[in-house]
Amino acid sequence: MNGLPPVLVIGGGPAGLRAAADLADLGYSVVLVEKRGELGGAPVRWKYKTLAPELRPTEEVMMPLIEYAEKNGRVKVYKNSVVERCEGGAGDFAVTVKNLSNGSSEKIKASAIIVATGFEHFDARFDPRYGYGRNPNVIGIHELEGMIKEGRIVKHDGTPPKRIAFIFCVGSRDRATNPWCCTVCCGVSIKQAIEVKELLKDAEIYVIYMDIRTFGLWEKLYWTSMEEYGINYVRGRVGEIYYLDGKLLVKGEDTLVRGPFEVLFDMVVLAVGMEPGEGTKQIAKALNLRVNEFGFLKPKHPNIHYDSGREGIFLAGACVAPMSVEEAIAEGSAAAMQAVKLLNRLSPVLAKSGGG
Amino acid sequence: MNGLPPVLVIGGGPAGLRAAADLADLGYSVVLVEKRGELGGAPVRWKYKTLAPELRPTEEVMMPLIEYAEKNGRVKVYKNSVVERCEGGAGDFAVTVKNLSNGSSEKIKASAIIVATGFEHFDARFDPRYGYGRNPNVIGIHELEGMIKEGRIVKHDGTPPKRIAFIFCVGSRDRATNPWCCTVCCGVSIKQAIEVKELLKDAEIYVIYMDIRTFGLWEKLYWTSMEEYGINYVRGRVGEIYYLDGKLLVKGEDTLVRGPFEVLFDMVVLAVGMEPGEGTKQIAKALNLRVNEFGFLKPKHPNIHYDSGREGIFLAGACVAPMSVEEAIAEGSAAAMQAVKLLNRLSPVLAKSGGG
Repeated sequence: MNGLPPVLVIGGGPAGLRAAADLADLGYSVVLVEKRGELGGAPVRWKYKTLAPELRPTEEVMMPLIEYAEKNGRVKVYKNSVVERCEGGAGDFAVTVKNLSNGSSEKIKASAIIVATGFEHFDARFDPRYGYGRNPNVIGIHELEGMIKEGRIVKHDGTPPKRIAFIFCVGSRDRATNPWCCTVCCGVSIKQAIEVKELLKDAEIYVIYMDIRTFGLWEKLYWTSMEEYGINYVRGRVGEIYYLDGKLLVKGEDTLVRGPFEVLFDMVVLAVGMEPGEGTKQIAKALNLRVNEFGFLKPKHPNIHYDSGREGIFLAGACVAPMSVEEAIAEGSAAAMQAVKLLNRLSPVLAKSGGG
Repeated sequence: MNGLPPVLVIGGGPAGLRAAADLADLGYSVVLVEKRGELGGAPVRWKYKTLAPELRPTEEVMMPLIEYAEKNGRVKVYKNSVVERCEGGAGDFAVTVKNLSNGSSEKIKASAIIVATGFEHFDARFDPRYGYGRNPNVIGIHELEGMIKEGRIVKHDGTPPKRIAFIFCVGSRDRATNPWCCTVCCGVSIKQAIEVKELLKDAEIYVIYMDIRTFGLWEKLYWTSMEEYGINYVRGRVGEIYYLDGKLLVKGEDTLVRGPFEVLFDMVVLAVGMEPGEGTKQIAKALNLRVNEFGFLKPKHPNIHYDSGREGIFLAGACVAPMSVEEAIAEGSAAAMQAVKLLNRLSPVLAKSGGG
């Protein structure tokens, strides 16, 4: 449209899809590169049924974005692909896109780049105290989402659990694993506890937490979970989990009553944190981007997320910091705006058109 | 530039200024209406010295935005002004702007409207237990910011305090006042505790909290405050504060050791929450916008903040929910992008220019 090559968007989750849709809507060509075989990022990969804080169906947010990217002629989607190399600069990047399925590579030009590579859930096998991957019926919140979506919460033997514990801050706020807070895991877990209770009316649900972090308007989830759903909250830390006669013995310390506890549960759900994924680490190297001490992409200024510090490269979403879907969407749109401003400076379509 | 009237931005804080700058940078005319006599919103009004989480000077973020609005010929700034009435629709709004200083009114046309009216700090006089406005040396975090900026932390008698208590969740997470969480007040208060400790090396600082909510990468502030600055944390609730012989007697309950406490302090800092201000209430009526049960502007979809549900009117920043400066900036840019898309549909400058 302006004599410039397309904008490259890396990552097909909420932030990347929002950026691609905004750019295409304005008439810009977009190349969207997604590592996996489907678009939608974490909400689609992990089959989020609803989004906190109001439990609205995830499809309401994600489907229009995915359909736009798939069907709009201005967005060329490369699935199963990563950006391997990048040369040149703003207005004239030369990028090598590698297809992970067949190993082929393609060189493409890009006028600007938006990096929206998202996050991965913490792999709870790296914190052995919970026995994740070893004990049956110890699952992550990302796995519970799929069960909630199917409407079928079951143990590995196919029967529904009666007593369920959610353990917060697994791979979060913990120097042995990841010291940062995952921002949304408290709220998402509480949302799930409510949804489980709606599916299994007789379930007894306990949440074991350090601090309840339902920020902003998400706070309402916390109150509702206690008052309308009878979710129980225990301030404490879990030391270990044993699998005993088909039950899970959860041992820990209650930091409010200041004593140890040993309680049997049928299922334990780990609120696994968010961390930068391999895709983020790889793209940081390929594009020569700054990362912080934890591996998140580090903006030039901590309070202005979209500015990568490299001209023509913009950041959006959970590759910068753990955040909600609503924040990722805003950041995707903001990054698209910054890209449009750059393109308009390089090839002033808007200003050329006249007055004011 | 496109035969359409300017975009109206209501509110001159981080979100509104970011939106105005993005639009003007693309060549669009902007009318920026700010209720107060200066631009910058809360960070300028309350003299934020630095921004959490990395204690970077507020000027780094705010000054370029303010200067852009003041000096760019495409942004017409109305200070001391509010939008009183609004007729018409997308592409052709007719808006009455009233000057609060002289009472005069002006009718202006607007193609699109971005509402970024921000927040107000909770007025702690409405929660009488703290004696704010009655007891000397009970101040709010917004007032402490100014002292930190001046580099002079003093009691009302001009001497520095030795023992300082921060009380979290004042006008937040409390049914008697505001039930939501203010999202950033924990982190901002901890930032301030660190800054006070740097100014007053001998100060003893206690934080009285319900849950510590330093979300995402802000978590580091919490650890640093304990390990490098010796800030003390007490999980509890304050019931009342008495002024006794020049000291403040803080009475409450420690919810960890499960017992009452009565401790003397020289100064008490209330982490007052964020709430929708009069400007937000007024604009909701003037523009016929939906508000939620708390008075925040309610987007059409809870996970897509910028969409007001009224065509041509977009939302950004803390008028939608309590949020950080970095979130408000992203939302300002996102709202600007949505406005540009609308204008381009109404008068397709970009698409007209050709191909792809």
